[in-house]
Amino acid sequence: MTYRAPVADIAFTLRHIAGLDAELERGAFGDLSADLVEAVLQEAGRFATEEIAPLNAPGDRAGTPLEDGVVTMPPGWKEAYRKWIEGGWASLTGPEEFGGQALPTMLAVATQEMWNSGSMAYGIGPTLTVGAVEAIHAHATEELKRTYLPKLVSGEWMGTMNLTEPQAGSDLALLRAKAEPRGDGTYLIRGTKIFITYGEHDLTDNIVHLVLARLPDAPPGTRGISLFLVPKILVNDDGSLGERNDVWCRSVEHKLGIHASPTCVMGFGDNGGAVGWLVGEENRGLACMFTMMNNARLSVGIQGVAIAERATQQALAYARERRQGRLPGMGQEQAVPILAHPDVRRSLMTMRALTAAARAICYQTGHATDLAHRAADEAGRKAAQERANLLTPVAKAFSTDIGVEVASLGVQVHGGMGYIEETGAAQHLRDARIAPIYEGTNGIQAIDLVTRKLPMAGGAAIAAYIAELRDIARQVAESNQPVFGRMGEGLGGAIDALETATAWMLEALKAEPDAALAGATPYLRLFALAGGGAALARGALAAQAMNGAGAAHVATARFFADNLCPEAAGLAATVTGGAYTVLGADVALAG
Amino acid sequence: MTYRAPVADIAFTLRHIAGLDAELERGAFGDLSADLVEAVLQEAGRFATEEIAPLNAPGDRAGTPLEDGVVTMPPGWKEAYRKWIEGGWASLTGPEEFGGQALPTMLAVATQEMWNSGSMAYGIGPTLTVGAVEAIHAHATEELKRTYLPKLVSGEWMGTMNLTEPQAGSDLALLRAKAEPRGDGTYLIRGTKIFITYGEHDLTDNIVHLVLARLPDAPPGTRGISLFLVPKILVNDDGSLGERNDVWCRSVEHKLGIHASPTCVMGFGDNGGAVGWLVGEENRGLACMFTMMNNARLSVGIQGVAIAERATQQALAYARERRQGRLPGMGQEQAVPILAHPDVRRSLMTMRALTAAARAICYQTGHATDLAHRAADEAGRKAAQERANLLTPVAKAFSTDIGVEVASLGVQVHGGMGYIEETGAAQHLRDARIAPIYEGTNGIQAIDLVTRKLPMAGGAAIAAYIAELRDIARQVAESNQPVFGRMGEGLGGAIDALETATAWMLEALKAEPDAALAGATPYLRLFALAGGGAALARGALAAQAMNGAGAAHVATARFFADNLCPEAAGLAATVTGGAYTVLGADVALAG
Repeated sequence: MTYRAPVADIAFTLRHIAGLDAELERGAFGDLSADLVEAVLQEAGRFATEEIAPLNAPGDRAGTPLEDGVVTMPPGWKEAYRKWIEGGWASLTGPEEFGGQALPTMLAVATQEMWNSGSMAYGIGPTLTVGAVEAIHAHATEELKRTYLPKLVSGEWMGTMNLTEPQAGSDLALLRAKAEPRGDGTYLIRGTKIFITYGEHDLTDNIVHLVLARLPDAPPGTRGISLFLVPKILVNDDGSLGERNDVWCRSVEHKLGIHASPTCVMGFGDNGGAVGWLVGEENRGLACMFTMMNNARLSVGIQGVAIAERATQQALAYARERRQGRLPGMGQEQAVPILAHPDVRRSLMTMRALTAAARAICYQTGHATDLAHRAADEAGRKAAQERANLLTPVAKAFSTDIGVEVASLGVQVHGGMGYIEETGAAQHLRDARIAPIYEGTNGIQAIDLVTRKLPMAGGAAIAAYIAELRDIARQVAESNQPVFGRMGEGLGGAIDALETATAWMLEALKAEPDAALAGATPYLRLFALAGGGAALARGALAAQAMNGAGAAHVATARFFADNLCPEAAGLAATVTGGAYTVLGADVALAG
Repeated sequence: MTYRAPVADIAFTLRHIAGLDAELERGAFGDLSADLVEAVLQEAGRFATEEIAPLNAPGDRAGTPLEDGVVTMPPGWKEAYRKWIEGGWASLTGPEEFGGQALPTMLAVATQEMWNSGSMAYGIGPTLTVGAVEAIHAHATEELKRTYLPKLVSGEWMGTMNLTEPQAGSDLALLRAKAEPRGDGTYLIRGTKIFITYGEHDLTDNIVHLVLARLPDAPPGTRGISLFLVPKILVNDDGSLGERNDVWCRSVEHKLGIHASPTCVMGFGDNGGAVGWLVGEENRGLACMFTMMNNARLSVGIQGVAIAERATQQALAYARERRQGRLPGMGQEQAVPILAHPDVRRSLMTMRALTAAARAICYQTGHATDLAHRAADEAGRKAAQERANLLTPVAKAFSTDIGVEVASLGVQVHGGMGYIEETGAAQHLRDARIAPIYEGTNGIQAIDLVTRKLPMAGGAAIAAYIAELRDIARQVAESNQPVFGRMGEGLGGAIDALETATAWMLEALKAEPDAALAGATPYLRLFALAGGGAALARGALAAQAMNGAGAAHVATARFFADNLCPEAAGLAATVTGGAYTVLGADVALAG
């Protein structure tokens, strides 16, 4: 059940795969130094390993009971959170004018991985606060910013996102919550929101809810939704806490996993109306939410990486310890660690390689997100924003899919012990299973990738990405390193498949959009195999220059190319040849 | 959370894919008629739907608490079990001389699917009793048979398998339980067994444990293990129940799923020694166990099918009911059932097709198992036994793997609701997750397939199987049915891949066995895609002759060929090209 933050792997991926070293040299991150990066990662790793990881299993068992409107977090969580904000971890990316450290997103993503490996139920809370900070910073009035941002940035208060209603999940057009102007610049909010993560808890004195609701006479659908800030406790003019607002946790869901993350049904206005303030323009609430959506999706993607990393560590530790079976010539009462068995090694290498690829894609997405604001020129910022837009759905969906797959493999490596809750392997699977669902289901990510991201810039964004992958494959081939084996071939095959499927998709979007939609999920997986394989190959190229110190990166990249990239061609065939039988399957799906 | 037994699909698969109709015509099953088969399936379907399915969720919540050595089954379970044995369901395949009905295994497998769809925690109990009956019937003395078989066959008593010990799971050579002869033909058994399914419960008055243990001075390893029958309650000469034997449930595991199946730590001889009787010869216990192992593996395979079927039904019902999103031209306040979305359709068709393919493989395995005893001539029986041996690991591993995959897709189709325990989708995932582990992990199944089953009869068994698949692909191509689309191509590609990988495996087994082991898991998956795709195509050929009544079978087969068979070539590439990076990955798996 132990977790040790893989700081060296994380630093390697940031520096040599996601491009941090190059940005530090170019000065894109101001005076951020390699030493400071190292110090941040080391200290975050220590905190995640020593302070958060031990909360994970007890938090799963204790859950977050609701009594008389009060949700109690598991024992030790409040103290850990206090230490965490004192360490400055909440404010890593926050705006400097409100006390934030304005560090790069890619560095923050690396720390998020560690918090979530420590405990996914812990990691998700601050993610939502960061999202609230972004939305308020980008869209709220100066007064709201001054009142709320300093405490949200520091983590003294936490934030939530209130979108979902029983009839409106993926489809926010169906949203019904109401906001009525009171004439004094405030609004009375009424309605029910469900699946509100950290909707109520006792970690902080106040909770700042961002709530989507409709103004009277707002147009139907998504063009009639506005965003409101609704604090749990109203804030007095002097900044002190005032009266309790009319927003209440009605119940806490009984979930498959992340038991220590309170998922609340929130009632707004049960006693007349919750006081709220408009954020951004009327009826433009969805646009305001989209401000933070990309980052939140990346943060959920990193949860997949995080749980995969922890599950891999635990399975590997078990496989080194557990002895079953023997090699030829051994005595009948002896046994080897199960790590010696080729089939177990395949499982563990699959876990390792999928985790490393997803990590690389997430960090690359963070890098692009940073450069979208920090690149030297407008063209660079535009290209980076497109790259971030392109990669975000892949980072979210692939990473969370492999989070579940790796956690499930982790259970399997443990054999019967994996099915016993005390072992902890099963908790990882239970926890991991939410990430492909929330913050936009992975199906919606795939549809976003295909319908909105591929056509960006007339297809130039995806073309540039594929060209980059090709360049890596070319470098692998030209390096002529025997230790790379057939890495270039495996990778090249995956890139070919991506190119074929992409061309087909761009055509299908025009000619038969439903066929494109039918292939979206296998297309996203294919994209990630090519992109992930290339990212690991980039790491292998860098590692090979390190005289053996990076041999593990080479072995992982090569395993990925030889064993996982071959899936790509089949996925391309499914994308280009499978739509008809998806769309025409009425008879097989009839009642 | 409802389940309706898919009796028509089950009957179709038995009759037209697994070959039941042909056997009825040939008279291989004596006077068994199509009408009786239909009646059995209908009544089993009714019982599973009405009596067992409603126990599933409450059983999950109640679990099986242990108090003062007594394990209490959830409310309603004892009554349901009583009705079930009164209906004659326990004795379906039991030997006629002890009250059994001696019906074909393939028919029993079909009923097992329904019990397990009703509740996996329910279904697993009787499976172990059937295994105990087989072992006792094949190996025990006449006296033991007379004493125990009538009540085990009827289900009045239940049986268990006591193999695993803390240090001896997959590796029974490490087993330590002791059996000491008392000089009167009985033995005193002492030791601890873990993961004993239905080791203690209150469904029946007696429980008959089959226990592996070592005689004094037995050789080490697997050649020194004997099998003993150890009843919970000793049986008097007149058949009445006598004294309590010294075997006790020490604890019940807290598991991820199948909460209503008591998984026990059993202590034998805590107060001196449990009285046991030798079954079969001394030191030949493993061979006796293997008697029932194949059938038990098939029974676990069918659990994967069963949970996949139930998860598919539930997801499909939700997808018809849940409305999100709209088609072009619809009003902003309208929404379509999510079943209308191509990506959701892909998920549901994937669930449907994987379930159908696994069902077909399991029923075909049952068919081969039957013919191994009932074929007209020795050559036929031998070929059938080889076919059963070949397919059993595939039936077990593929079906239980897809059980988890389909249940996970089912959670995903439900979106956020899937993560809430009350919905029931998550329980299917939790329940399904044990089946790839118990009764020989799926890794062990894959190794068994590659190292023991492929070389059977000098490779002739697998060659005959591949030739059969080819023949189906040929029929598809020659049928020239437009409605089959590219089914022949997809299927042909998968069979090509299987042939390539098989040839490579047979070579590798001689030249570099570790490389064969490293590819065992992807090879098994590849085998199942080709075999499952061909089985569905066989169904499509039969369905096409039914003038449209079988259109759903055609659509499912075609979806499988177009969307799932393309994975096969990549798997073959992994098998033939990936071993080096599995075996040479030390550096990436170092501590």
